[in-house]
Amino acid sequence: MFYSTDLSDVVVAQTKLCFIDKDKGILKYRGYHVEDLAKMCHFEEVVYLLFYGKKPDNDQLMKLKEKMAFYRSIPYSIKKIIDNIPREVSILEVLRTAVSALGSKDLKFLAPFEQVLYICTKIPTVIAYRFNLINDREMIEPRSDLSHVENYLYMLFHEVPDKNHVRALESYLILTLEHGLNPSTFAARIVSSTHSDMVSSVCAAFGALKGPLHGGALGEIINMIKKIEKEKDVYNWLEEKIKNKEKLAGFGHRIYKSRDPRVIPLKNLSYELSNENSFLNLAMMIEEQASLIFKIYKPDKNIPINMEYFAAILLHFIGFSNELFIPTFSVSRSIGWCLHSIEAFKGPLIYPQSEFRQELT
Amino acid sequence: MFYSTDLSDVVVAQTKLCFIDKDKGILKYRGYHVEDLAKMCHFEEVVYLLFYGKKPDNDQLMKLKEKMAFYRSIPYSIKKIIDNIPREVSILEVLRTAVSALGSKDLKFLAPFEQVLYICTKIPTVIAYRFNLINDREMIEPRSDLSHVENYLYMLFHEVPDKNHVRALESYLILTLEHGLNPSTFAARIVSSTHSDMVSSVCAAFGALKGPLHGGALGEIINMIKKIEKEKDVYNWLEEKIKNKEKLAGFGHRIYKSRDPRVIPLKNLSYELSNENSFLNLAMMIEEQASLIFKIYKPDKNIPINMEYFAAILLHFIGFSNELFIPTFSVSRSIGWCLHSIEAFKGPLIYPQSEFRQELT
Repeated sequence: MFYSTDLSDVVVAQTKLCFIDKDKGILKYRGYHVEDLAKMCHFEEVVYLLFYGKKPDNDQLMKLKEKMAFYRSIPYSIKKIIDNIPREVSILEVLRTAVSALGSKDLKFLAPFEQVLYICTKIPTVIAYRFNLINDREMIEPRSDLSHVENYLYMLFHEVPDKNHVRALESYLILTLEHGLNPSTFAARIVSSTHSDMVSSVCAAFGALKGPLHGGALGEIINMIKKIEKEKDVYNWLEEKIKNKEKLAGFGHRIYKSRDPRVIPLKNLSYELSNENSFLNLAMMIEEQASLIFKIYKPDKNIPINMEYFAAILLHFIGFSNELFIPTFSVSRSIGWCLHSIEAFKGPLIYPQSEFRQELT
Repeated sequence: MFYSTDLSDVVVAQTKLCFIDKDKGILKYRGYHVEDLAKMCHFEEVVYLLFYGKKPDNDQLMKLKEKMAFYRSIPYSIKKIIDNIPREVSILEVLRTAVSALGSKDLKFLAPFEQVLYICTKIPTVIAYRFNLINDREMIEPRSDLSHVENYLYMLFHEVPDKNHVRALESYLILTLEHGLNPSTFAARIVSSTHSDMVSSVCAAFGALKGPLHGGALGEIINMIKKIEKEKDVYNWLEEKIKNKEKLAGFGHRIYKSRDPRVIPLKNLSYELSNENSFLNLAMMIEEQASLIFKIYKPDKNIPINMEYFAAILLHFIGFSNELFIPTFSVSRSIGWCLHSIEAFKGPLIYPQSEFRQELT
């Protein structure tokens, strides 16, 4: 019997979806570096690549785009359900509820990849529907002539979006499509290993993503930068936090110990959107000074800036409010959840052991 | 790095909740044999025991019963949501949707055990509400003067239930409250390890429970017995199935290799409810003949009857239709999910490794 309470030293699955080298800081989808995909591809292209293992030709891409547009709208019953969820319930919880209410009844008749598209293409629509509802704005139906990312921005902001915003968001979503057995994906795989259905997997994953140790701290980053903005002395503010052993939002990663390959592309994209504004300058100053202070107070630890830091800044520049950050992350990661569910369905039932400990606190 | 795709050889958590000896066929909750608890205790007593580690005195039991009755009703918004879920969506999926819609907003102000009661006491009410709705029957509000189990039966069948039915259901629910790191509980623990919330854990667990390799095959057992009822030759029917390597619902258990300690109590309870009717006789004949045939065709394997077999028969005798079986299982197991979530919240983030395999099918 092997003992591992966090499973960090256990390989639970083989996957053809991604390759992670945590020491060298490499992330590849089906053999392609994510940085390259984020720079050169459209979102739909990478979705195709992840499932089929090769990039689509023009015809295949057009067909996929059409299909994704087709599945995009949400039924009337789901809208009524969203209307009835109390206003204080977060958008991520609304998303989970709406997806849950779809049930598995329609999925049964669809091939696995169709199921992925059926579920995942509705996520932006649900987010936008709820966002418009709680902000007392007009409901906007999806437009099938726009791409997945264009349409998402259109439903949220009510106008055909700026090309730079589309490019930035598209790159962000490509970079976050998939990342091995992170807790939300792992939860999805466990559900699928019981031969349950893809909706069930996605609902499980939403709950894990909500946790502050997983996706749930994204909004904190902008709050932190805004808080520091009001201070005179950035260095002192950060030093105080680090001295008191408080966690600094946006620093440290569970997997990558040296560099997260997604950071540089996101930083560059943020720079391109910023128009050299002071918010980005401040953010970069925080990055620099925090790394100095970490070297003094935690010289034996390497606490690099993480992907979330510049992701939050990028989303902020596009015009997203904090409440949209984690739901937007799920727009892409849900694809990873579903593709892993397909793999786990073919694998064994996951049923680990526990050990009884009478005096556990 | 350790490799394990089903984690059957990995201890992922210590727990004070239960002890399982799979070779000897022992299951204990906080030191007590489940058979004894099922015989002598009320449901609320065992819920108290599981959380506090000791049985309640009269006063403590009364207070818990009052509290469980208090949390039992569901808000108007949740009823409206249930009303809007298409009729084809299963009760288990409705349950997940309703619990998801509760969100975590109210939980924040409650202590952990209060959160458990807040969520789990609403599960019978949601089941009954939906069951009455799809069967075009009157909606029945929960009655606070009835115990948890009495009230569940009352809401479903619209009359104060027979004492034998209450006793049988109570025993069944006690026997199924908790069972280590089964896939639904494990999914709940992963979600909680991200510091998400208890509603998120329960939603994840519902999805895993739905899978046919976990709870999802319960309904099949009654279908099988009814199918065999129409046949003349039980032995031949079973032999045909086993020869063709088809799975026989109700046989074999992932954990217990010799005996499942929950089988005998459930068999006895079924017998008491049966009035010696022919359905039970047939069920016992199937058990007997299947075990004979297994010995011939799979002499090296031990495929004992499992808990689900007599659980299904017991629920059938109480008057439950198949569609209520898995939801009823969640009435008790949800307590285990939540208590494990409390434990996992204090543990590390669960984030296993995957291995890239380009040629995976």
